[in-house]
Amino acid sequence: MKLKERVLIAVMTGLVLLTVVLVLDVEMHITNPGHPQPPAHARVQYAFRQRHLQKTSNGSREALLAAAASGQLNAINDDPAQPPPLREISQAHAHQPPDPYTDLQKLVFKVENLSKKNRRRRKHWNPTLGELLGLDLRENATLWDNFHLSISRDELYPAEDPTVGRLLQHVVGMPIAHISQKEGGTQIKLIIEFADGGHALFKPMRFPREQETLKNHFYFTDFERHNAEIAAYHLDKLLGFRRAVPTVGRNVNITRELYALAQGDLLKTFFISPDNNLCFHGKCSYYCDTAHAICGSPDMIEGSFAIFLPGKEAAPRKVWRHPWRRGYHKRRKAQWEVDDEYCELVKEVHPYNEGRRLLDLMDMAVLDFLMGNMDRHHYETFKMFGNYSAPLHLDHGRGFGKAFHDEISILAPIYQCCLIRHSTLTTLLRFQNGPQRLSDAMRVSMGADPLNPILWEPHMRALDRRVNIILQIVRECINKAVDPLHVVINDFH
Amino acid sequence: MKLKERVLIAVMTGLVLLTVVLVLDVEMHITNPGHPQPPAHARVQYAFRQRHLQKTSNGSREALLAAAASGQLNAINDDPAQPPPLREISQAHAHQPPDPYTDLQKLVFKVENLSKKNRRRRKHWNPTLGELLGLDLRENATLWDNFHLSISRDELYPAEDPTVGRLLQHVVGMPIAHISQKEGGTQIKLIIEFADGGHALFKPMRFPREQETLKNHFYFTDFERHNAEIAAYHLDKLLGFRRAVPTVGRNVNITRELYALAQGDLLKTFFISPDNNLCFHGKCSYYCDTAHAICGSPDMIEGSFAIFLPGKEAAPRKVWRHPWRRGYHKRRKAQWEVDDEYCELVKEVHPYNEGRRLLDLMDMAVLDFLMGNMDRHHYETFKMFGNYSAPLHLDHGRGFGKAFHDEISILAPIYQCCLIRHSTLTTLLRFQNGPQRLSDAMRVSMGADPLNPILWEPHMRALDRRVNIILQIVRECINKAVDPLHVVINDFH
Repeated sequence: MKLKERVLIAVMTGLVLLTVVLVLDVEMHITNPGHPQPPAHARVQYAFRQRHLQKTSNGSREALLAAAASGQLNAINDDPAQPPPLREISQAHAHQPPDPYTDLQKLVFKVENLSKKNRRRRKHWNPTLGELLGLDLRENATLWDNFHLSISRDELYPAEDPTVGRLLQHVVGMPIAHISQKEGGTQIKLIIEFADGGHALFKPMRFPREQETLKNHFYFTDFERHNAEIAAYHLDKLLGFRRAVPTVGRNVNITRELYALAQGDLLKTFFISPDNNLCFHGKCSYYCDTAHAICGSPDMIEGSFAIFLPGKEAAPRKVWRHPWRRGYHKRRKAQWEVDDEYCELVKEVHPYNEGRRLLDLMDMAVLDFLMGNMDRHHYETFKMFGNYSAPLHLDHGRGFGKAFHDEISILAPIYQCCLIRHSTLTTLLRFQNGPQRLSDAMRVSMGADPLNPILWEPHMRALDRRVNIILQIVRECINKAVDPLHVVINDFH
Repeated sequence: MKLKERVLIAVMTGLVLLTVVLVLDVEMHITNPGHPQPPAHARVQYAFRQRHLQKTSNGSREALLAAAASGQLNAINDDPAQPPPLREISQAHAHQPPDPYTDLQKLVFKVENLSKKNRRRRKHWNPTLGELLGLDLRENATLWDNFHLSISRDELYPAEDPTVGRLLQHVVGMPIAHISQKEGGTQIKLIIEFADGGHALFKPMRFPREQETLKNHFYFTDFERHNAEIAAYHLDKLLGFRRAVPTVGRNVNITRELYALAQGDLLKTFFISPDNNLCFHGKCSYYCDTAHAICGSPDMIEGSFAIFLPGKEAAPRKVWRHPWRRGYHKRRKAQWEVDDEYCELVKEVHPYNEGRRLLDLMDMAVLDFLMGNMDRHHYETFKMFGNYSAPLHLDHGRGFGKAFHDEISILAPIYQCCLIRHSTLTTLLRFQNGPQRLSDAMRVSMGADPLNPILWEPHMRALDRRVNIILQIVRECINKAVDPLHVVINDFH
């Protein structure tokens, strides 16, 4: 009898699970029946995904990717060739009260309680560069030294420390002493040396805030946006990562602050345009010619100023190829784009087979998805902190390019590995449920920048919409997982 | 007493002339007192001109160039950074009834009457290519042969002949048999071979009609416009030149009509863009890369089809450097831009020292000024016709780029030489006084093109405005000339 009962229970559980899978599958097909057909582009991507779905034997992965695809269709319905008037978008969202994700909230509490039980009593070891270099911060240390020596294994700056805010204010007002072109990039960047010896990386404005990535441009031909660099710093900070370089906006006089200081090859590229604006183009591999010059109006121009990290001699860095790097070619696809089991390979290899690194890639995917950044080919760490250090979030000039399109494939690390850090999920749930949504928090945070408003309003709405999409995908992962505690990981006990 | 009288009359005439010069000079300074200050750009160009004015010893040239400069200021007042709403422009024009230029009309009649008196009785010799090659047009000759063999020393096609119209209609419907890339250009062009063996030069559309030349772009970095090629053919024809290659618009299916026929290097440049459009970029020295690809929507694209002239083996051509060529450099100026006596040099040298050629350059300046084309570096003639043949008007892809700016310097040949062909002036006066203004005539003429409307409406208004500017400048030339018959020349007796 006991055996019979057990078999009966197993069969019934199986049936229930099967029904759930089927219901989810049907749900996917009837999503938004009142909406018009998605454009051809969406259909192709969807078909592409379906083709790969057929290859998988894993039912849970199927439902998960289907959800991702359906999330994408939702997003693309939001993105007609002509962006809809703002009113329509907000009305569309007004119809659906935001999902509070109570299931995910419960799980987050559970993970937290379990972590408390298992908590190791010893303090989490998080050395700073100053400690490792044996350098103490004297009382008369500059803001630059303060920032550099306080960089720790876990973060570029502490949550509550006022140093970064002060340093950014300082950068906005400090006279520029020297400029030179940064070698090796694809688009023009200048190294700025201030009168007090500090350095920042300057990216000039090319286009007005509301200009989107050109629709036929790839992520690797997209122009860089100075405001994306600024916004990325605030976003990374609000997500609690603190791995992006502090960056601030500043108006620059090309004549007095750049032309007057330029030398050599850079100087030769300055000219007066037919519209009588002072322009320059520098030398680089993309868009460094007269036809793509940076021009003032007539000589004032906005730019982003990213604080320099410590020199590579003092604090050498290691460059890592991002496992979910794209093909950087107009036809070639990366392995992860055609292999849904790709994460299994990544999990096997150093440094993703132990420690925090794989979870850090999930965080990076969250950051990149929220800003639509597809240009994450490499990342860096400070060698000094070893393999257990947080990666740096560098180079976000190609974020915030498409406000009406949500590029789900940026979340591939998350939906292929079904992993997310407990603290990141907690933060996302907080922004989902308020009282302060992510767009509100960004508005407050970026409000202090001299170039405020930093982002075109549709990008702000995109942030909130994308928080919801990430939570949808995490939910699907959890629903399909053997154990939800394999999906939501708390590695900061 | 007779001597005394003569001296008195001479002194009084001198005084009257002096007063006229002074009045004109004052007039220049008080032009449009109610208008706002011109933008810095205008002031700089104006100052530039003034600097050169100071160098000249010739009073008449001074007043002439001042008028040119004031014409420019007028035009630039029409061209704020933000183009004014259409209503404002038409209202502004409504205030000033168009000048009928009765003085110029009288002169035109005078030249005509004088010409009649001096008319040589022998027929004007105007051989065709067919005649020179000894080839008769048989009854079953193709439209292509008909067009090629009827090209004459004076014009590419006769005024009343229906061949060109039929050939253009033919080009719109004829299947494409082969395509290849045209070598040597700066921007992508395809050589199209039709099923019947005829050829045309295809320039694809890059931007919508209303996109202007980017304000910081030079004439030599401007993108080419397929519709400028079409409009230039109609404009040249309406001006009575008939020296521009017949050109027509056609919609092309990139997939079926280009991709399916592409080979080799060209084929390799086709790709599907992120927006799922079929694109290609070809190989050339400017803008031939993924970031500047030609894309369909999703695979249809507009283009201009310019009928091929006879092959260079059958009818070889001579390439001439245009004496008023620009510097093609972001800082370098051409000699004519800094030397107001430049025309005196040109007049001395072959082939401008005799025959029609110098007057042909004046015609070219009229054509180019009307469409705002600054990209006239070379021109060609058929060797067979010798030095007395009309130059060809080729390559107008950079015309019609700035509807709100009138580039007076394009008229330098006219205001530096003070010359204009009688027939051209007659035509301009006809368009000035109506009943059919130039914009109306263009509207009718281009109405037959499959891609109609060919031009953005502000370019149509610019045409009428620019007719008036040319007449202003001719008037100043005549007013300052020793003999008006040295300005208006009738070389087609």
